[in-house]
Amino acid sequence: MTPPHKTNGVGVQAGDTQICVVMVGLPARGKSLIAQKAQRYLKWLSIDAMVFNVGNYRRQDSPQPGADFFDQSNAEGERMRRAAAEAAVTDMLKWFAKGGVVGILDATNSTKARRRWVKERCDAQGIETLFVESQCDDEDIIMSNILEVKTTSPDYQGQDPETAVQDFRKRIRNYEKVYQTIDEEENDLTYLKIMNVGKQVIINRIQDYLQSRVVYYLMNLHIKPRSIWLSRHGESEFNLEGKIGGDANLSPRGEMYARKLPELVRQSVGDDRPLTVWTSTLKRTIATARFLPENYNQLQWKALDELDSGVCDCLTYQEISELYPEDFKARDEDKYNYRYRGGESYRDVVIRLEPIIMELERSENILIVTHQAVLRCIYAYFMKKSQADSPWMAVPLHTLIKLTPKAYGTLEERYDAKIPAVSTWRGKGSVAKHEDPNATTDSIGKADGAV
Amino acid sequence: MTPPHKTNGVGVQAGDTQICVVMVGLPARGKSLIAQKAQRYLKWLSIDAMVFNVGNYRRQDSPQPGADFFDQSNAEGERMRRAAAEAAVTDMLKWFAKGGVVGILDATNSTKARRRWVKERCDAQGIETLFVESQCDDEDIIMSNILEVKTTSPDYQGQDPETAVQDFRKRIRNYEKVYQTIDEEENDLTYLKIMNVGKQVIINRIQDYLQSRVVYYLMNLHIKPRSIWLSRHGESEFNLEGKIGGDANLSPRGEMYARKLPELVRQSVGDDRPLTVWTSTLKRTIATARFLPENYNQLQWKALDELDSGVCDCLTYQEISELYPEDFKARDEDKYNYRYRGGESYRDVVIRLEPIIMELERSENILIVTHQAVLRCIYAYFMKKSQADSPWMAVPLHTLIKLTPKAYGTLEERYDAKIPAVSTWRGKGSVAKHEDPNATTDSIGKADGAV
Repeated sequence: MTPPHKTNGVGVQAGDTQICVVMVGLPARGKSLIAQKAQRYLKWLSIDAMVFNVGNYRRQDSPQPGADFFDQSNAEGERMRRAAAEAAVTDMLKWFAKGGVVGILDATNSTKARRRWVKERCDAQGIETLFVESQCDDEDIIMSNILEVKTTSPDYQGQDPETAVQDFRKRIRNYEKVYQTIDEEENDLTYLKIMNVGKQVIINRIQDYLQSRVVYYLMNLHIKPRSIWLSRHGESEFNLEGKIGGDANLSPRGEMYARKLPELVRQSVGDDRPLTVWTSTLKRTIATARFLPENYNQLQWKALDELDSGVCDCLTYQEISELYPEDFKARDEDKYNYRYRGGESYRDVVIRLEPIIMELERSENILIVTHQAVLRCIYAYFMKKSQADSPWMAVPLHTLIKLTPKAYGTLEERYDAKIPAVSTWRGKGSVAKHEDPNATTDSIGKADGAV
Repeated sequence: MTPPHKTNGVGVQAGDTQICVVMVGLPARGKSLIAQKAQRYLKWLSIDAMVFNVGNYRRQDSPQPGADFFDQSNAEGERMRRAAAEAAVTDMLKWFAKGGVVGILDATNSTKARRRWVKERCDAQGIETLFVESQCDDEDIIMSNILEVKTTSPDYQGQDPETAVQDFRKRIRNYEKVYQTIDEEENDLTYLKIMNVGKQVIINRIQDYLQSRVVYYLMNLHIKPRSIWLSRHGESEFNLEGKIGGDANLSPRGEMYARKLPELVRQSVGDDRPLTVWTSTLKRTIATARFLPENYNQLQWKALDELDSGVCDCLTYQEISELYPEDFKARDEDKYNYRYRGGESYRDVVIRLEPIIMELERSENILIVTHQAVLRCIYAYFMKKSQADSPWMAVPLHTLIKLTPKAYGTLEERYDAKIPAVSTWRGKGSVAKHEDPNATTDSIGKADGAV
C-alpha cells in the first residue's frame, strides 16, 4: 500500500504537485512583496517554497546598472539579463528536482516570449506554472513603491535618492516599451492577474487545490497601512499553579491586567480608530478583553483556543514528566510536530489558524487576545520564525505586542503593563513551574531575543 | 460592552453584513444551480441565506409562456416580467429587514439598467450587492443545461420535449438580443464573472470577508460528473462497549469490514478509475482503509477526526448521564449546538469541515472513511439536512454510501457489506449501549428515513 501522507492542512501531498509561480509586471508593481509574502505563507503551512529573484542573479555580474542597461536596444544589457534569467530558472529547476514544491520566479517576465520560455522549461520537467501579473495604474501606489525601491534596492545603495528615483523611472519606461500584459492570446496559461492591488483580479484556468490556495491568498492581500495587536490573556489561576490547558479564571493580577489593557491599547492605538477584538472561547481571554471600549466589536473564535494538550490537560510539567515520561521527552525533541495524546501539535494549531491568518490579511486593525502557543504561531507567521524556534519563543504575560506589516518585514513594538506575572515559559528538559526565560543558557531552548 | 458574538466559523458576525447576490446571465447558463449551491453552502455554515427566483414570481401570473413572451418588443410580456422582478426584490428586501444575511436574486438581470436598479434598491436599505455573472460559450454545456431545463422547469411541464427545446432556444435568442455582459463601465460594482464554469473568473472590488467566502466557494465549483463515497470505520472495540470517542482498534467484525471494503468499492466504482482516499488520523479509520488498492492515494486529515467529546471521551452514555446529568440533558435538547465540556459541538465540527467541503467541491472522485458525527455533517451538506435533524441521523456501520451531485440535488446509493455490527445510534433521552434506530417511535429522535 502507498504509505498514507499526513495532510499538511491544505490537503496537498508534497510531491504530488510542484508549481512555479511566475511573477509578471513592470518594476514597482509590488512583485517582490507578493513573492515574499507567498513564500512566507507557504512555509508557515509547511509547504516548501522558495523565491528565485532574477535581479539578484543579474547583480552578480552587474551590481548597479543605469537605466540604459534595461533599454531593449542595449544588446549587452539584454544578453546579461537573459543570462540572469537562465541562471535563475536553472537553479529553480534543480531545486524542484530535489523536491521543492512552490518555486517563485521573481522577475518582470514582461514579454509573451519570455513567459512562453519559462513555461516550456517548466513543462519539460513536469512543473506546473501559475503566472501572477501585478498590474497597476494608480500613480500613488507606483510612487510609493518607487520610493520603497529607492531606499531598499541594492541597485541604488549609496546613491543620491533623487538621482536614484530619476534613474528608476527611466528604467520603468524602458520596460514599458516592450511590456506585454497577459491577454486572451495566453488563455492556455494558468494565471492570476491582480489589478491595482486587488481591486480587480482575473483568474484563468486554475487547476488544482494548491494553485487555488495560492490564488486565494494572493487575492486577499491588501496594502492599506494597519497593525495587529496581540496579547495573551491575563495571568490565570492555572498559570499560578504551573498547570497547562484547562479553562481557569484570571488570577487577581490577571484581573489587574484586564483592567489595565484598555489603557495600554489607547496608548498604542489612540482614541480615534476602533479595533475589532478577537478572543478565544475560553474564559481567561474573554475576561481579559471585557473592559475594552464598548465601540470595539468582539468576536470569539474557537480556532484561537489554546493548543489542546489532550490527556495532559490540567497537569503540571512535573506531572506530565512523571505520568508520560516518553511523551515528555518526545515533545522536547520535536516540539513543533509532537502531538499530545488525544490533543494537538503546533503543526495542528497552525492548520486551524490558517483561516485566521487569511482573515487577518484581509482585515485592517485587529486586537487578538489569545494563548501562548496560538500567539507563538501567529507571531511566527508575521515575523517569519522557523518551526524549530517558534514553539520555544518566550511570550510574556501582561504585555501587548503591536505588529505592523511593512513591504520588507514586520515592525514590532511591545508595551509592558508593568503588572507582575509568573513566567509560563519552559526551557527544554525543564519541569519547573516558573522559569526565567532569560536565565537559561541552553542555546536551543533559550528564549527568543525579542523579549 | 457589546456582547461578543460567537463566530460562525467564517469570521462573520450575523447582522454586520448583508449581501444580495445578484445572478446575471442568459438562460441555460447554470444560474439557478449556482444560486442553489451557494444557499446550501451558506446555510450549512449557519449563515441565513435564501434564493429569490424571479421566474417563480412570474409563473404566478404566467405559468407557461411561449418564447414570444420574452421578446423585448412584447410590451405586455415586458410589463409582467418587470412586475415579477419588482415582487421578488420587494420580498427579498423584507426578508433582509428581518435579518436575512445573504439573499440570492436568481434571474437573468441581463441589462445594465436592470442591474443598476437592483443595486439602487439594495443601496437604499444598506444591503451590499455582489453580482455573479455566469457566461458560457461552450455549446456542450449550454445544450446539457437546455436539456436539464426541458425536463425540470415548470415552464415546460407536460409539454412535448422537442417543442420545449425549440421554444427554449427561441427564448434564449430573445434574451440575447438585449443581453449586456458586465464590462468596464460597471467596474464600480462588486462582481464575480464566471466564464465556462470556472475556466476563467474575474473578481472585481470584493470588499469584505463574507463576499470573499462566497466568491471563493463559487470559483471552486465544477460540473464534471463525479461521486463521493462515504464510509464509517469498521466496528471498533469501543463500539462494542458502547463507549464514545477514544482511539480504539477495530473489532474482529470491523476487521472483516476492512477486508471487504475493497470489494464494495470495486462494485460501486469499477476497476478503471482510481479514487483518492481520505481518512481521519485515528487508528480505526486508517485500519479500515488499509486494504484498498495500492494505486489509491491516501491522505489523513485531522479535520476528519471524530467530534471531540472532551471530558466525556471514552465514556458510555450511561456513564455520561450519571457523571454529567445536566450536560446529558442539554445535549439532547440542542444536539447541534451543545459543546461537550472541553470538546466540540456539531457546529464546531462543521466549521472545521469547511475546508474539506471546499476541497470536495474542487475534486473529482473521493472516498472518505471517517466517523459518525463527521459523516453526518458531510452528508448534511450534500443532502441538505437541517441542523435539527442531522445530529440524530442514523448512519449504520459497515455500509458504503455513494453520493452523486446532480444539477437539482444529490443522488444517494448505499452498499451494505452484510457484516453484522452493533448500532451506535442513540435516540433522544436514551442511555442504551446499542439501540435499533428503526424501533423507536419518538418522532424527533427517530432515525432518518434514508436508512
